[in-house]
Amino acid sequence: MSIEDRLHALGLQLPAPLQLPAGAKLPFPWVLVRGSRVLVSGHGPTLSDGTLATPLGKVGAEVSPEQAYQAARLTALAILGSLARELGSLERIAAWVRVFGMVNTAPGFDRQPAVINGFSDLIIELFGPERGAHARSAVGMAGLPFGIPVEIEGEVELAS
Amino acid sequence: MSIEDRLHALGLQLPAPLQLPAGAKLPFPWVLVRGSRVLVSGHGPTLSDGTLATPLGKVGAEVSPEQAYQAARLTALAILGSLARELGSLERIAAWVRVFGMVNTAPGFDRQPAVINGFSDLIIELFGPERGAHARSAVGMAGLPFGIPVEIEGEVELAS
Amino acid sequence: MSIEDRLHALGLQLPAPLQLPAGAKLPFPWVLVRGSRVLVSGHGPTLSDGTLATPLGKVGAEVSPEQAYQAARLTALAILGSLARELGSLERIAAWVRVFGMVNTAPGFDRQPAVINGFSDLIIELFGPERGAHARSAVGMAGLPFGIPVEIEGEVELAS
Repeated sequence: MSIEDRLHALGLQLPAPLQLPAGAKLPFPWVLVRGSRVLVSGHGPTLSDGTLATPLGKVGAEVSPEQAYQAARLTALAILGSLARELGSLERIAAWVRVFGMVNTAPGFDRQPAVINGFSDLIIELFGPERGAHARSAVGMAGLPFGIPVEIEGEVELAS
Repeated sequence: MSIEDRLHALGLQLPAPLQLPAGAKLPFPWVLVRGSRVLVSGHGPTLSDGTLATPLGKVGAEVSPEQAYQAARLTALAILGSLARELGSLERIAAWVRVFGMVNTAPGFDRQPAVINGFSDLIIELFGPERGAHARSAVGMAGLPFGIPVEIEGEVELAS
Repeated sequence: MSIEDRLHALGLQLPAPLQLPAGAKLPFPWVLVRGSRVLVSGHGPTLSDGTLATPLGKVGAEVSPEQAYQAARLTALAILGSLARELGSLERIAAWVRVFGMVNTAPGFDRQPAVINGFSDLIIELFGPERGAHARSAVGMAGLPFGIPVEIEGEVELAS
């Protein structure tokens, strides 16, 4: 079963490219391919039309841990959307390599791993435990662009 | 002298794998090998039995800079433990590549480099100035999992 | 036109190596070369003599977004200075790969991308839109060494 088939079976669809908030200018690609390495810029959670998902704000304050888990899952879909557009097919991904999960953190919140599991759980469900395995950190930031609750960057490897 | 010999000569031992705090689930490997690249997930300081070392909290508040230096040193040992288990032998490490040192930072604390030196000093003592050399950042986070004072991720390279 | 020529045409010069604040010890190289990969340690903004540029502090409080944009631009020059010293010539850089832009963030500030554009805009101006393209994140930190407002780490690739 292809990744696309698994997405469909889960009732998921990849969102459109990020619609930038008014006045923002991001002079870099979402995905950069160098040989078999694919670098993924920091993504946040988006709705299917590419607008930023809500709620915005800090996890542990305006955003609950459960909402943040969903935001991390939406961030996975946003990254998969960027990868699919750049690579043509998600089947070209041989392995996940590195995932850096950043949580917009209210004072006292220290469950960043449970939040970023929203990303990891979906990637492993789609790619399986071997192909989907990734080195990971999940850490707390003092602020993220536009108040997004989660931002994730990483690297995947192409099949040769 | 092997890395293991040097560890013994310093009276150090590698800790057991992290014993997760109750309820935590970390669906990713501590170390991921792709060809000659070895990606190291974010580690914190542990005792020899794999439990989280104390004190927990923010550096500059609950945790002193000296305690944080020790925490970074313990984090180096935790990473070396994960690498030894995954690679079989630390001798397979040809070079350190990248170290990203994250300090759980109280308002006003800005000596993150002196904290992460606890990591770098030990790695260089064990691997020597050439093999142990690494590109590094040392920066302040708004929160880290379970309140650990230091978290470090990175990359090493295997001998071919 | 070479990168050096473009720097001259813009009236820019690469700064001297960082003059460490008193008492600081940084036991790692600014640039680490492994094959065609060049890892760049976290740099901050410096003046031409290598001293830290001012103002120091948090963006959104002591440092305005416009001053932070300039700090990110100075950070690009500091990184180019380190790369030029290590590589001999900036012409050896075939591609920018990854840029991780960290902004020392006051409560409520969420325009990190506009700050790190000070880095990206200059890199793209010097290297052009293809060679200068980079995967990027721009995020908010709770503290940075010595109170610098911006710190950037990354990776570039050498021509083979």
